[in-house]
Amino acid sequence: MKLRARLLDIQAGGRGIAILDDETASLIGVHSSDRIKITHKNKHLIAIVNIAGDFPHNYVGLYEEISRKLGIEDGEIIEVHPAERPEALSFVQAKIRGERLRENQVKMIVNEVVERHLSDIEIASFVTALYIQGLSMDEIEAFSKAMVETGSTLTFDKTPILDKHGIGGMPGDKTSILIVPIIAAAGLIIPKTSSRAVTSPAGTADRVETFCPVNLTIEEIKDVVMKTNGCMVWGGALELAPADDIFIQIEYPLAIDPLLLPSIMSKKKAIGATHLIVDIPTGRGAKVKTIGSANALANDFIDLGNRLGIAVQCALTFGEQPLGYSIGPALEAREALSTIMGNGPADLREKATSIAGMLFEMIGIKNGKQKAESLLRSRKAERKLRQIIEAQGGNPKIKPEDIKVGEKRAEITTEKDGRVLWINNQTVVKIAREAGAPKEKGAGLVLKTKLGEQVEKDIVLFEIYAERNTKLEAAIELARNLQPIGLSKKPEERMLIGQVPTRTKHRETFMLER
Amino acid sequence: MKLRARLLDIQAGGRGIAILDDETASLIGVHSSDRIKITHKNKHLIAIVNIAGDFPHNYVGLYEEISRKLGIEDGEIIEVHPAERPEALSFVQAKIRGERLRENQVKMIVNEVVERHLSDIEIASFVTALYIQGLSMDEIEAFSKAMVETGSTLTFDKTPILDKHGIGGMPGDKTSILIVPIIAAAGLIIPKTSSRAVTSPAGTADRVETFCPVNLTIEEIKDVVMKTNGCMVWGGALELAPADDIFIQIEYPLAIDPLLLPSIMSKKKAIGATHLIVDIPTGRGAKVKTIGSANALANDFIDLGNRLGIAVQCALTFGEQPLGYSIGPALEAREALSTIMGNGPADLREKATSIAGMLFEMIGIKNGKQKAESLLRSRKAERKLRQIIEAQGGNPKIKPEDIKVGEKRAEITTEKDGRVLWINNQTVVKIAREAGAPKEKGAGLVLKTKLGEQVEKDIVLFEIYAERNTKLEAAIELARNLQPIGLSKKPEERMLIGQVPTRTKHRETFMLER
Repeated sequence: MKLRARLLDIQAGGRGIAILDDETASLIGVHSSDRIKITHKNKHLIAIVNIAGDFPHNYVGLYEEISRKLGIEDGEIIEVHPAERPEALSFVQAKIRGERLRENQVKMIVNEVVERHLSDIEIASFVTALYIQGLSMDEIEAFSKAMVETGSTLTFDKTPILDKHGIGGMPGDKTSILIVPIIAAAGLIIPKTSSRAVTSPAGTADRVETFCPVNLTIEEIKDVVMKTNGCMVWGGALELAPADDIFIQIEYPLAIDPLLLPSIMSKKKAIGATHLIVDIPTGRGAKVKTIGSANALANDFIDLGNRLGIAVQCALTFGEQPLGYSIGPALEAREALSTIMGNGPADLREKATSIAGMLFEMIGIKNGKQKAESLLRSRKAERKLRQIIEAQGGNPKIKPEDIKVGEKRAEITTEKDGRVLWINNQTVVKIAREAGAPKEKGAGLVLKTKLGEQVEKDIVLFEIYAERNTKLEAAIELARNLQPIGLSKKPEERMLIGQVPTRTKHRETFMLER
Repeated sequence: MKLRARLLDIQAGGRGIAILDDETASLIGVHSSDRIKITHKNKHLIAIVNIAGDFPHNYVGLYEEISRKLGIEDGEIIEVHPAERPEALSFVQAKIRGERLRENQVKMIVNEVVERHLSDIEIASFVTALYIQGLSMDEIEAFSKAMVETGSTLTFDKTPILDKHGIGGMPGDKTSILIVPIIAAAGLIIPKTSSRAVTSPAGTADRVETFCPVNLTIEEIKDVVMKTNGCMVWGGALELAPADDIFIQIEYPLAIDPLLLPSIMSKKKAIGATHLIVDIPTGRGAKVKTIGSANALANDFIDLGNRLGIAVQCALTFGEQPLGYSIGPALEAREALSTIMGNGPADLREKATSIAGMLFEMIGIKNGKQKAESLLRSRKAERKLRQIIEAQGGNPKIKPEDIKVGEKRAEITTEKDGRVLWINNQTVVKIAREAGAPKEKGAGLVLKTKLGEQVEKDIVLFEIYAERNTKLEAAIELARNLQPIGLSKKPEERMLIGQVPTRTKHRETFMLER
């Protein structure tokens, strides 16, 4: 049926929504939420119908997602038909029944997710089925490949291409800001793309953005890497694996993450990585709780790497407390910068040089950790970081104190003396977010003590930074209630570590960050 | 945050959608697809945010679902805040993990489904988890009760209240149009609510609507039942179990039906049924394929009935071919009417009097089937049907030939002689729908033969009725390809009953009808 387009200038998060009036919908034979196929100049896409009471007859209202993709102008005549049921839906149903999917079936699903032929309802059902029924390594491989094929890729003339990835869930982890310059300073290519925080107080992209732009195009990234061997950019707008971005949107409210492996590895493949270290923080407060499950996950990464042509090694790292002392974009950037300048906390330095060392040894360089330490000590890594900052459009002369942190500040002090028995990562995350991170870049926490340290009564345990008083007060209130740091003279004096139901009601954070 | 409302006169199938411009959304702290809480005069509801490019600042665009529920006028100032994560979401997650849900948890989920606090994504994930993980009878009971509590109910002063329900999947099943008058003619109350077809060629409401109105309010239904003891109305707009209507909307594209038992039984409880027969058509072409699974399902219905205070018996009925000869709203109504007037097919009469007889015996009336047959033979049932038609606003003097059927007609003939080995229910459904049923009420099929009959070459196997030539031709084409009726001289001469992949590509119909 031919209808006149009315452009609506409304967006629905990537979904194509089309508005029809009752009678026009009835003539086409569709109801609210049905799928229609919209054709314009030999291009077509699938949209979801919403029904409007007194929308004009023979018009179709188009959300921006549709008019932009098909290049439709207001008032143009377009073809609208009921859409056929997407073929991929039968494979979604096969997975619900617990069947294994074949490579071509996975490919079709991923294609139809990217094309938006599958609705949110169908994708939600699919990821739930994946989570419950599990995926075989063949399926994981098929998803990874299909996600790469449906996205953009980065190519460089040189090899090896090194990369590093942390699976997330570790507050204060600013290691990438050290590793990228160390590797690049050794003359090796490391085109690092990072994410922004969704559920955490800071992603690497948020941290880096406090001292230089991170929102680069693929061409700009290539330029930066050609000049400096490395980069630290936001991967989100590059469409490296657009299917994954859609899956994540749906998984997030459900707090499930069945596509962790394809999600991470497809993006590494898309930037052409040949050698990759996956950092798996392990421990009670981390995503992975035990060494056993960390090993299992590590072997899956290595296996999948083999199948995709990426040499993978995994670093199981201590994940029972935040890394370094600072949490929040600007506070972490400050800490990373002063660490690369020769100061900074020992755990951050240790982790960065260990991982950089593993990367060196993967490509045949002996005594990798010593090499990394020497690049750090000699300030070659610092000079490289400043080159990268300049190439990305930032000020290469930046000093830690130039990075603006929150002006509202509060100190949380001890009520008695004792030893630090635990630091609850999740609780630290909640307080930093309550203070305004990651949106307010200056907000966050600075710990004044770490695990095992002895503290006196009335000593500062941690500081809270915020950009606004209301946020600061909310964070203080939450910190008082949640008590992220457990103190006792002897462990046996403090056996109760939680109670069910909890005294304090606060939303649990699902860590989807990767 | 206070925003000015702009009413949009758009509907999204019950979902509350609110439009914000970029900056206003950012000020509130929400992204596209996030949930906001809208408050107006102490009433509030949860809406999903869509972002508009140049929507005016400090305005919120409201889909009709929201403005209607909260009684908001265009231009009024309303409160908009980011919504908290619905508590029920943790129980959705518990089900994904395979946990059993407690009664209060089920209640909270059903409540938040009805209130639209749970998004389509969350509900889709939930029904998928229910389907894969299964439900215990305690959970089924809790769902049934919660669905009743969140909907409208019908109450009558008299008892017993009789009812009958077919689980669906059986084309041509017009038994209710006979059973209701038989029961009512015996002076017993039977307030029958029925559904319209979604995936079948006709629901009872579609059939009845060809001779009288079915879209009655709860008050009108009570009047009709007071006058005549019975009714045959559409249950869809009565909000008897609104949660179920939302679940069905989500389940339909997924072709899963985990809430079959609560869905059916909640509606029976809502109309106050005390005695219920559930008809379970059984056989190769039916929803339930074997006597074993029919028995298992029957026992679940009986168990659930006990828990809800409804005496339940199940009729396992022969489901390997359509009931009677006609398929399609008007054609079936004609057949039902002529059957109650003394003619009509034997299988329809047999099934109707068997089920009516079971209902009689459930409340202590002996020789139920004979009683039902005598009410049919004496035309008392017919007179009662005409009373009900009149009470619902139809013409009580209607004759079968007054019901308008499709004027376009085609005959499908045999190519050789033989015996009818099978009639494929699914294929019959597809052809009837291709001809235009249920939307075009005169469209459908009339079989000229049934299972086991001997037919000659060039004899009419079935007729196709349509209201439009294009539909008729499409149905003929499909009938030729799918060959719904299998003929052979002896069964052993025709061993091949299907092939994979099939010769003819045609969308599989998921029978969600109940």
